[in-house]
Amino acid sequence: MSTIKDVATKAGVSRSTVSRVLNHHPYVDEKKRKAVQEAIKELGYTPNSSAQRLRGTETKTIAVLVSRIVNPFFSAVVDAMDEVATMHSYRMILCNTRGRADQELHFLELLRTKQVDGVILASIVNDWETIYPYLQYGPIVLCNEYPRDLHGAPVITIDQKKAMTTITKHLLHKGYDSIAYCNVYDVNHLPEGVRSPLAEDRYEGFVQTMKSEGKVIQSSWRFSGHSVDDGRDILRTILGLSNRPNAIITGSDEIAAGIIAEAKVKKVRIPEDLAVVGFDNQPTATLLEPQLTTIHQPTFEMGKQAMEMLLTLLANQNEQYESVTFLEAPIQIRHST
Amino acid sequence: MSTIKDVATKAGVSRSTVSRVLNHHPYVDEKKRKAVQEAIKELGYTPNSSAQRLRGTETKTIAVLVSRIVNPFFSAVVDAMDEVATMHSYRMILCNTRGRADQELHFLELLRTKQVDGVILASIVNDWETIYPYLQYGPIVLCNEYPRDLHGAPVITIDQKKAMTTITKHLLHKGYDSIAYCNVYDVNHLPEGVRSPLAEDRYEGFVQTMKSEGKVIQSSWRFSGHSVDDGRDILRTILGLSNRPNAIITGSDEIAAGIIAEAKVKKVRIPEDLAVVGFDNQPTATLLEPQLTTIHQPTFEMGKQAMEMLLTLLANQNEQYESVTFLEAPIQIRHST
Repeated sequence: MSTIKDVATKAGVSRSTVSRVLNHHPYVDEKKRKAVQEAIKELGYTPNSSAQRLRGTETKTIAVLVSRIVNPFFSAVVDAMDEVATMHSYRMILCNTRGRADQELHFLELLRTKQVDGVILASIVNDWETIYPYLQYGPIVLCNEYPRDLHGAPVITIDQKKAMTTITKHLLHKGYDSIAYCNVYDVNHLPEGVRSPLAEDRYEGFVQTMKSEGKVIQSSWRFSGHSVDDGRDILRTILGLSNRPNAIITGSDEIAAGIIAEAKVKKVRIPEDLAVVGFDNQPTATLLEPQLTTIHQPTFEMGKQAMEMLLTLLANQNEQYESVTFLEAPIQIRHST
Repeated sequence: MSTIKDVATKAGVSRSTVSRVLNHHPYVDEKKRKAVQEAIKELGYTPNSSAQRLRGTETKTIAVLVSRIVNPFFSAVVDAMDEVATMHSYRMILCNTRGRADQELHFLELLRTKQVDGVILASIVNDWETIYPYLQYGPIVLCNEYPRDLHGAPVITIDQKKAMTTITKHLLHKGYDSIAYCNVYDVNHLPEGVRSPLAEDRYEGFVQTMKSEGKVIQSSWRFSGHSVDDGRDILRTILGLSNRPNAIITGSDEIAAGIIAEAKVKKVRIPEDLAVVGFDNQPTATLLEPQLTTIHQPTFEMGKQAMEMLLTLLANQNEQYESVTFLEAPIQIRHST
């Protein structure tokens, strides 16, 4: 039985090009398209996951990969995925990559060795070129995080840049103009050289809005973290600065919760002395005092649509399909700003 | 290759008896023990997981079953398990049973079909007699929840009755004597007839302490739930009572958080009008205002020891081993009582 690789070799093109042709991607050189179509015909190539189904090796199991299961954002998303999977008599297994590239590939082996029918990546550490070959073993759907050069797989996410633009405009409108920024990373130690397009897009939304309003971005007001404890540390660091910001964008409700908790200890008034904005709208957001202004992530919709997309691809025997879905992520204005 | 079942049939005893003999359990009739030992010899029986390893079919994968992954208690426990598994080059997959007996058995099939080497049950829905036969395919460790008639498998948990006794004594000592009790169940709809020994043991600690101090237990002050929203509902129900309690034991930090949040809306003072006690000591407990008095569950130790126990059983090729480990779970007294 021939594979995408065989088709690529015969047509003298890359596997990505084969995938683009299979998915009727608009930007494919006409000559290459013809070469691929001829190779497919000559080799009698059938998309692999369909072949897999013909061999009757369905597992009715889906693997979902996340970087940090203790993040309530992920547990809410995967709970929605699980609900949809269960409803369709699939079982879902959850894999915690701990933000490690090797673990991510380790779990993707479940797809290659046919222990699962498909995979949802809610976080991604490896380059897309490293992950792409796994598509020959079954469909992969991205949810939340995405690589910059994604092709051959759909993604369900929110417009990160737009969300951060909304937050920045809200703060500027409220009169806060000394704004600190916290870059959120969801792993203990982000591997050297790994860039997160999600984090980059968020930061771009902040920078562009600040610049367009003629505001200065202070490099000493840039932080990073992901936990409640990181938030506590950030508040203490801010108090040590001679030139303090009057607002902070955290990118995470957990960091924001830590800042608010530590502010109480240090008698810093929120939002009078420091406005705080979260990201996600986790259940904690309304339990804090003051209640947290944050971006509402549609966790249920995100998980639901990602699993539905994967089940559709499995039903239609498509191992490759491209689409980008941006879900609405409105700002929830509360009392921390 | 002969199985435990074959040994049991030949010896004319139950499979549990065979397991007890294999594990050198003290309470086995001497006649039965001899019959089993003879049957083992005659049949040339080898414990199955050892046989499996001899056949070289190790997967280096562990399945962990929980009833509700969105419960931060479970995500903290499984994160610790995952850390230990990763350190020992095992991968862990997480399975959300949604408190459904059929889903639990569905995931246990991963053990029977040799897709995983062992299983940790952090929650349990089926009777132990239904799960017990799976032990012939590999070791199972229980963590947190436990069945009443457990045998052939170890459990790592806390002394639930002692924890609830500590809470009740703390409230009585503080002068609260009208105490409401909330039974926590961790699934949307507990299947008909399913009893939770964990919940029963907790309630027994409450009832015995109240009775020994000559206090009355009001049946109208008994609630149940598991979420923040359930907590909000419970506070509203309490306000509708003509005869109100002055304290509530919730069994869950999430329920307690909902009660405290709704109390703020309804201008009920915590702890002056109503004292609130949680259970778990989740990160939220110190973010609430007032900070929550709760039982500290040793989530990290629980997850770590459960995974270490399973890896030890795998290394020693024991599919059956009995032990009960109670970890310390001290009360954290804060400002909600």
